[in-house]
Amino acid sequence: MFKAVMNAKNFKKIIDSISNLVDEICFEVDELGIKANAMDPSHVALISVNIPKESFDEYVSDTHDIGVDLEALKKIMNRAKPNEKLMLELDMEKNKLDIILKNEGTRKFSISLYDVSSSNVKVPEIGYPNEVMIKAGTIVESLKDAELVNDHVSLKITEDGKFIIYSKGDINTNETVLDRDNESIIELKISESSKSTYNLAYLKDITKATSSEDILHIHLGTDMPVKIEYIIGDTKLIYLLAPRIES
Amino acid sequence: MFKAVMNAKNFKKIIDSISNLVDEICFEVDELGIKANAMDPSHVALISVNIPKESFDEYVSDTHDIGVDLEALKKIMNRAKPNEKLMLELDMEKNKLDIILKNEGTRKFSISLYDVSSSNVKVPEIGYPNEVMIKAGTIVESLKDAELVNDHVSLKITEDGKFIIYSKGDINTNETVLDRDNESIIELKISESSKSTYNLAYLKDITKATSSEDILHIHLGTDMPVKIEYIIGDTKLIYLLAPRIES
Amino acid sequence: MFKAVMNAKNFKKIIDSISNLVDEICFEVDELGIKANAMDPSHVALISVNIPKESFDEYVSDTHDIGVDLEALKKIMNRAKPNEKLMLELDMEKNKLDIILKNEGTRKFSISLYDVSSSNVKVPEIGYPNEVMIKAGTIVESLKDAELVNDHVSLKITEDGKFIIYSKGDINTNETVLDRDNESIIELKISESSKSTYNLAYLKDITKATSSEDILHIHLGTDMPVKIEYIIGDTKLIYLLAPRIES
Repeated sequence: MFKAVMNAKNFKKIIDSISNLVDEICFEVDELGIKANAMDPSHVALISVNIPKESFDEYVSDTHDIGVDLEALKKIMNRAKPNEKLMLELDMEKNKLDIILKNEGTRKFSISLYDVSSSNVKVPEIGYPNEVMIKAGTIVESLKDAELVNDHVSLKITEDGKFIIYSKGDINTNETVLDRDNESIIELKISESSKSTYNLAYLKDITKATSSEDILHIHLGTDMPVKIEYIIGDTKLIYLLAPRIES
Repeated sequence: MFKAVMNAKNFKKIIDSISNLVDEICFEVDELGIKANAMDPSHVALISVNIPKESFDEYVSDTHDIGVDLEALKKIMNRAKPNEKLMLELDMEKNKLDIILKNEGTRKFSISLYDVSSSNVKVPEIGYPNEVMIKAGTIVESLKDAELVNDHVSLKITEDGKFIIYSKGDINTNETVLDRDNESIIELKISESSKSTYNLAYLKDITKATSSEDILHIHLGTDMPVKIEYIIGDTKLIYLLAPRIES
Repeated sequence: MFKAVMNAKNFKKIIDSISNLVDEICFEVDELGIKANAMDPSHVALISVNIPKESFDEYVSDTHDIGVDLEALKKIMNRAKPNEKLMLELDMEKNKLDIILKNEGTRKFSISLYDVSSSNVKVPEIGYPNEVMIKAGTIVESLKDAELVNDHVSLKITEDGKFIIYSKGDINTNETVLDRDNESIIELKISESSKSTYNLAYLKDITKATSSEDILHIHLGTDMPVKIEYIIGDTKLIYLLAPRIES
């Protein structure tokens, strides 16, 4: 069995965070909580989510793989109202996941399970020279600036302690320069200068579901995948995005 | 002659309520007020509107048929501002309807009359086993839920006194279950269980112009047309929508 | 050299006002300020802008022609936040204009200069019989009304002192009648009745960037170009729009 109750708003944000990158996912549920790892269809980005039992108001579960169409689940969660309770329940007989929204009345959705293989994708353990802790809003705005000049963006760390978001187009350029004095920087841990370039659309998808005050942990190195982590309630989300190797 | 003055906001809402279903209409005006009956182009839905003399601040009229293009009239009424006065006046010489909006300045639109036959459409007298009085907002939200799984929806009454809005797609299902305890239910008059299925797009069009606190009177039976009534000021709107007979 | 600092919000509004009509422009800068004159690609409308030195918090400049792609500049200015400072600086070595937005962090855009010839376009000195000073909001709303019936609009002055915005379509007509008593009319200087017809889309573009309380000075005559002037801070904008000669 699998039955879990939580605030609809938090689950909606988790689903938004995942569904911007992948179309379907296998939730691996057990007595400890819900986990999922997936790569985007082009294998450029990896997402890992861990929703521990403690995130839920109620939680009872055996071990199951629950494969779902994220697009359908996202649309359903978009129908949730701010203060609604969400109940997720596995209907093993019908092979469906029931999504029940409760406030005044009861609204129930049942979605068919998909045979999504619980991937063997794991977040690789990589040592990074640099780490930036920054408010998500600043990153989101910088990406919108960068988007005006090109479809990729460089994340740079300078030796004198600056974090630079840089984009260069055929005609125009853009850069946002941030240092420790900036209000949106929580912490800068720098051990060397670095530079990597990433696909802008992926970075936008990764940060799309964040609120401007969410804190992003961004791990950076030269020509390395960027690792971005953030927390929704007790849920931890990890993204890994491969660099664009410039010829 | 025909000359009528009313609050622009109410007339705008009446026109919105009609124009979602029909493209042109013949207003039958006389000394008692304005009436109109029409079927939608596919003859699936019927609308009947009665705006009595009492709805107007001023009203003087002989007997006329005033055929108008509802799309044009709707666009004009969308230009009205919240507190404007609306004056409707028949210009028999030019065969036009003058629509005058007044607050500070005077804005005047003149639209050509159409030769829309005053249809012999009448709302049939049907006895219904069940009646639901419910806040429009709850219906509108339930239809949005149902829309995620299919393009038709079943309205069900159960013998134990529940009103269920149910939709079943190839993969997913959705239902909203409401009973007398629900805050949005004003009254449930039930004499037998019933079920009918309707085209979702029509139900959306019928309820599109409602405000969430408007009270809908919904008359239901098994495989019967649904009759939905509501009131805007002193104006009564009646919709009849044919059931979808499932094979 | 050229270096100028001003409130980002005002410069954004100036660029919006220009870019609705022309795609690229040559700013002629010198020690007195920034000037530009341009015709729209179809040579139906002329725009003239004068941003005097006094509009800026800081201003130092030699004589230069700075040709820019207005579409790119507009998109950049749309990224400015309400209270940001804007610094414009000519990078003569790289042949670029730097656009620097400053609040907490520093965001810098560099755009390539275009070889836009500083046109010899001048606003012709024309004597007009009539002048209307009116709040921009009323004109904008009247144009939206007129748009429902046709794609051109007549601006009329009657001998008894009315300013009429009139549109006639194949089926419907619209008119807004304004006189001295109207709250939105600041002044009407009338010496004769007049009527000219203009392309509605151009008039919308000309007034698009105005705020509803901005005061427009509209100079009118029969079959004459309309001259519309307004002020943003210390900056003066002049538009001239050729009449549509009805056959």
